[in-house]
Amino acid sequence: MTAQPHPDTPLTREDCLALDAGDPLAGRRQLFHVPDGVIYLDGNSLGCLPLAAVEHVRRTLETEWGEGLIRSWTQAGWIDKPRRLGDRIGGLIGAAPGQVVVADSTSVNLFKVLTAALRLRPGRDVIVSEAGNFPTDLYIAEGVAELLGGYERRLVPEGSMDVAALIDERVAVVMLTHVNYVTAEMHDMAAVTRAAHDAGALVIWDLAHSAGALPVDLDGIDADFAVGCTYKYLNAGPGGPAYLYVAARLQDQARQPLTGWLGHARPFAFTTGYEPAPGIDRFICGTPPLLAYAALEGALDAFDGVDLAVLRAKSQSLTDLFIRLVEQECGEHGLALAGPRDRALRGSHVSWRHPEGYAIMQALIARGVIGDFRAPDALRFGFTPLYLSHADVWDAVAVLRDVLDNRLWDDPAYQRRAKVT
Amino acid sequence: MTAQPHPDTPLTREDCLALDAGDPLAGRRQLFHVPDGVIYLDGNSLGCLPLAAVEHVRRTLETEWGEGLIRSWTQAGWIDKPRRLGDRIGGLIGAAPGQVVVADSTSVNLFKVLTAALRLRPGRDVIVSEAGNFPTDLYIAEGVAELLGGYERRLVPEGSMDVAALIDERVAVVMLTHVNYVTAEMHDMAAVTRAAHDAGALVIWDLAHSAGALPVDLDGIDADFAVGCTYKYLNAGPGGPAYLYVAARLQDQARQPLTGWLGHARPFAFTTGYEPAPGIDRFICGTPPLLAYAALEGALDAFDGVDLAVLRAKSQSLTDLFIRLVEQECGEHGLALAGPRDRALRGSHVSWRHPEGYAIMQALIARGVIGDFRAPDALRFGFTPLYLSHADVWDAVAVLRDVLDNRLWDDPAYQRRAKVT
Repeated sequence: MTAQPHPDTPLTREDCLALDAGDPLAGRRQLFHVPDGVIYLDGNSLGCLPLAAVEHVRRTLETEWGEGLIRSWTQAGWIDKPRRLGDRIGGLIGAAPGQVVVADSTSVNLFKVLTAALRLRPGRDVIVSEAGNFPTDLYIAEGVAELLGGYERRLVPEGSMDVAALIDERVAVVMLTHVNYVTAEMHDMAAVTRAAHDAGALVIWDLAHSAGALPVDLDGIDADFAVGCTYKYLNAGPGGPAYLYVAARLQDQARQPLTGWLGHARPFAFTTGYEPAPGIDRFICGTPPLLAYAALEGALDAFDGVDLAVLRAKSQSLTDLFIRLVEQECGEHGLALAGPRDRALRGSHVSWRHPEGYAIMQALIARGVIGDFRAPDALRFGFTPLYLSHADVWDAVAVLRDVLDNRLWDDPAYQRRAKVT
Repeated sequence: MTAQPHPDTPLTREDCLALDAGDPLAGRRQLFHVPDGVIYLDGNSLGCLPLAAVEHVRRTLETEWGEGLIRSWTQAGWIDKPRRLGDRIGGLIGAAPGQVVVADSTSVNLFKVLTAALRLRPGRDVIVSEAGNFPTDLYIAEGVAELLGGYERRLVPEGSMDVAALIDERVAVVMLTHVNYVTAEMHDMAAVTRAAHDAGALVIWDLAHSAGALPVDLDGIDADFAVGCTYKYLNAGPGGPAYLYVAARLQDQARQPLTGWLGHARPFAFTTGYEPAPGIDRFICGTPPLLAYAALEGALDAFDGVDLAVLRAKSQSLTDLFIRLVEQECGEHGLALAGPRDRALRGSHVSWRHPEGYAIMQALIARGVIGDFRAPDALRFGFTPLYLSHADVWDAVAVLRDVLDNRLWDDPAYQRRAKVT
């Protein structure tokens, strides 16, 4: 990317095209199906369809299942997919092989790693998280605390990022989402992990809004556990299978309670007693949904050869540009930036608060600019560096300006039913 | 089906063709892709590909995901799939609407309903199951007992079906698979459920080897909980999403600990506290893998209009025929029937024990007759009434006879790597 023009000069669409001309990732867009007439700023909820996913799913469906049938468990390598795809995701989150498996949903994986972590810290009774964490993380912590009894959920209040202040010797686990799902503000993973370890606690990182948009270095920061979904920036499709990371040094001590047969040391010996598999495999539970894995496989192909530093730079370029253009073009309409202005602290989405946020988002969607709304008042826009251009950002802001200038959000014709992520 | 010829008369292939001519389900085979050169007797591990699944997956992938993107959560009804497909499965297992959801894997669902059931019976500390249950059921019971502490797993010994003898006032939950995965012997669901209820216990039925092969009447027997997979006789593909049933009368008291956001009363309110959804929805956890749900949807289409009594009659006709033909054609080779001879007690598969079972099965597979092997010595053959014919049974037995008569299982050319289910 070339540098953005001087901040005192109003930007033009030509400036955006110039940025695209210097974009080393521009060619990746052709690996995706981006619908005509749509500027898709919701890849942080559900990424666009990678064309390779179509081919992988077709092969798994028609050839591996249709022709190979049960033989495909070995002949098509189905039995190895949780580990093999886990290692590929590991390459995007700084995890050496053998520490990531693809399995279940993020929520189920949170349950596994949280119970495993708590059992590694007997005598401690506090789970630290933050009120602004994504709800499922908070709900799983509540469910685990209620099930096991005697645990307290201690939450950083909304608006604060000061986790370290809550960590003391009662804390068993610190459980955080790296990039906040509304504001995109990022925790300093290394610093929080260090603070937790200094107090004898373990850390669980939720990488839902990180993986595929920016580099993460789990091994480098001495992480303990992590989870994430694949349907956001990893583009694996609706309800794509989730993953989890357990640091190699913890795997053989860690016990998770979803003791399904595929986490057994010898699943095909059909014994009556459970014996956890060595290593990361014990975090697998039931039979994996292989059609979903096939889509993930195609989705990961789109990352082959991508330099994550370049990916991050483009993501920052897009979000910087979006903030600047919204303020330049829509400055008088009372949109309040909900997250950090410092690109170093920001993930790959940008939210603006507005009292009519819901109606404005419906009008935008009706005009083909797809973002999403997060209660109570946030318009959220995600920027997937693999398939978005700077010109897309310009065009989206032009529509936003039109909606705001002409109060289209007040027009019944633009009201649509709420969508969900 | 016409009646089978008199038991004293050796059967011929023509007799099998005559049975097929009277088969009201014969036309269903054209709804499936059955590979050329294969007689597929492993539909109880992984069913054949329903052609409608290809179309449903293509639409979900290319149209709903590719074009609709995030809008498909409402516009394509994604958000309703767990309930809507659950109700369709409910129609096959005797469950009125609102009691079944499609979610997660069988193992994860066992964890949910077992913990929910145990919490409904405080003060009781025994989980009854059987040593011959499918391992994942036993492992999950072990994992739950270990996690919660203070529970005992009480197992009916291998070879016995006498569950009632183990039920006393300490028993919280009886947890059984309706059709044994090796022998196909069936529990009397009504009688076991009654015995458990008389002692104040709850029952969990695993319908893995039942649903789609024979009628089950969950509501009629006053069942409490049930789980099942969809990749066997329901033909939803490898790792197809599982389902669970909770009787309406128990739903609002039942609490399961996998408290993910999609089981919340208001998932899109993004509150910090968990509030279980009313009814069966609280048993949903994370975001469902919708490509897998699409395959299931196509698979269920193949059951539209099927009379389950007719399905059961054909299943019994196929398994009766198989037993008779194996004994007629291969009687001198020492195969010992592993399950019930009485069709009323038998599910839809048949197993034979033989000391060389593993090698024999590999030779059969090499010859295109696909069954599977279950340690230590069982050759297992599944009979899916929707796509198998009586002539298939004849042809499979002819291959089996050839393998045994000529000791082909002893021939290195027929040795293949073990497959897994």
